[in-house]
Amino acid sequence: MADGRLVIGTQRYSSWSLRGWLMVKLAGLNVATQVVPLEGAGQTKALKTLSPNGCVPYLEHNGAQVWDSLSIAEYCAEHAPTLWPADRCERAVARSLSAEMHSGFRGVRSTFPMNLGRDARPLATPLDADVLKDIARIDAIWTDARKRYGQGGPFLFGAQFGNVDAMFAPVVSRFLSYSVPALSETSLAYMQAVRHHPLMQEWYEAAAREPEAWHLDMYESIA
Amino acid sequence: MADGRLVIGTQRYSSWSLRGWLMVKLAGLNVATQVVPLEGAGQTKALKTLSPNGCVPYLEHNGAQVWDSLSIAEYCAEHAPTLWPADRCERAVARSLSAEMHSGFRGVRSTFPMNLGRDARPLATPLDADVLKDIARIDAIWTDARKRYGQGGPFLFGAQFGNVDAMFAPVVSRFLSYSVPALSETSLAYMQAVRHHPLMQEWYEAAAREPEAWHLDMYESIA
Repeated sequence: MADGRLVIGTQRYSSWSLRGWLMVKLAGLNVATQVVPLEGAGQTKALKTLSPNGCVPYLEHNGAQVWDSLSIAEYCAEHAPTLWPADRCERAVARSLSAEMHSGFRGVRSTFPMNLGRDARPLATPLDADVLKDIARIDAIWTDARKRYGQGGPFLFGAQFGNVDAMFAPVVSRFLSYSVPALSETSLAYMQAVRHHPLMQEWYEAAAREPEAWHLDMYESIA
Repeated sequence: MADGRLVIGTQRYSSWSLRGWLMVKLAGLNVATQVVPLEGAGQTKALKTLSPNGCVPYLEHNGAQVWDSLSIAEYCAEHAPTLWPADRCERAVARSLSAEMHSGFRGVRSTFPMNLGRDARPLATPLDADVLKDIARIDAIWTDARKRYGQGGPFLFGAQFGNVDAMFAPVVSRFLSYSVPALSETSLAYMQAVRHHPLMQEWYEAAAREPEAWHLDMYESIA
C-alpha cells in the first residue's frame, strides 16, 4: 500500500516531472507514479482539475499536497536532509542555484525542449544571444560548483546526487540531445555522471516504453 | 557591526527586493541594507558583477552568499522557523504557493509593474485574458488560504506574517496601485492587512524618500 501518489507528465518530454520524480525517488517516498500524457503548450485538460495549479509534478503524500518542483524539493529534504548539502553556506548556494534554475534560463528552455528520443543532433539554426548567455551561465555554474564543492564525487556538491542535481538533470538531457556547444570538460564530465545515474537510466528506460501515440509533433519536428 | 549586507534595488520598483527584505527583517538578521538604483529592464550595470546571478535581492550573512528570493526565504527560515507554518501539510502548501509565485503569474507581473508612487488608478486599457486568469488564480489562492489556514489572524496562514505573505506582498502593492478589479472581500481584507504591516509601512516610507532622479519613465508613464 503506497503512502500517496506522484502525478507526472509524459516522461519523454516533461522536464519538470523528471525533477520531481528524481527528488521523490532520492527521498525514498513510497508513492505510486501516475503518468498523464501531455497535450503540449500547457493544454492538458486532465491536469486542469487534478492538481491545484493545473501542472505536473504533483505529489500527494500522507495527507500533504505538494505542487511545483521546488516545493517538492523542500518536502523531500524534510524526509531526507542529505538532499541539500550539510554545510550551511553550501546549502545556501545549492538552494540559490536551484531557485535560479526554477525561474530562469527561459532561452534554453524554449529553444531546447526536452526530448529523450532525440539523439545528440545539433539544432539546424544558429542560437540566439539569450540562449548563448544561458548556456554560458549554466556552464559556469556547473564548472564552478564541481571545482569548489564537488571534490568528493561526480555531482555538483560531491558524492550525493541531490536536489540541485535533480533541478539541472533536464538541462543535462537537453544539452546532450541537441549537442550543445562550448561546454567545459568539467561540465561534460558532470553531464555524463548525471546521465548514467541509476535513476536517470530508469527514467530514460520508462520513457522509451511509452506509447508512440504520446509523441507530439511540436517537439519531434524540431530540425 | 553588521553580520553582512542585503543588496536591493530601487524600493519604489523592485518587487523581488521587497520580498527578500521582508524575509530578512522578519528573521531578524543583522545586516546592512545597500540600495542599488535600477536602470530598468535588467540593465543595471552595477549589479552584473555584484551578485552571482547579476540580480537583486542578494544576501551576504556570516559568510553565506544567498541569491534569489526563494533561497533567501529558506535561509531565513533556518534562523526563524516560524516563517513557514509549523504544520507539515500547511508548510507544504505555503511552499507550493511561494514556488507558484516564484515562477508564474507573468501576465500580472508584466502588466502591472510595481510602482509605490502610483495611487490606486486603474489601467486605461482592457486587461488581456492571461492577466485576468492570473488575477483569478491569485484571488482564489488568497481567499482559500485565509479560509482554510488563516483563521487565527489576518495573514494567509494566520497571525504570523510569513514567507508566503512576503512572496505575495508585491502583488498586494500592484493590485492596490492599479485598482485591480474582481477580488473577493476576503482578498481585499488580506491586502489591507499586508499593506498596513509595520514592515510594509517602513518600506513604503523609505521608497517615498528616494531621490526623484531614480524614477524611470518606463514605469511612471503607464496610463
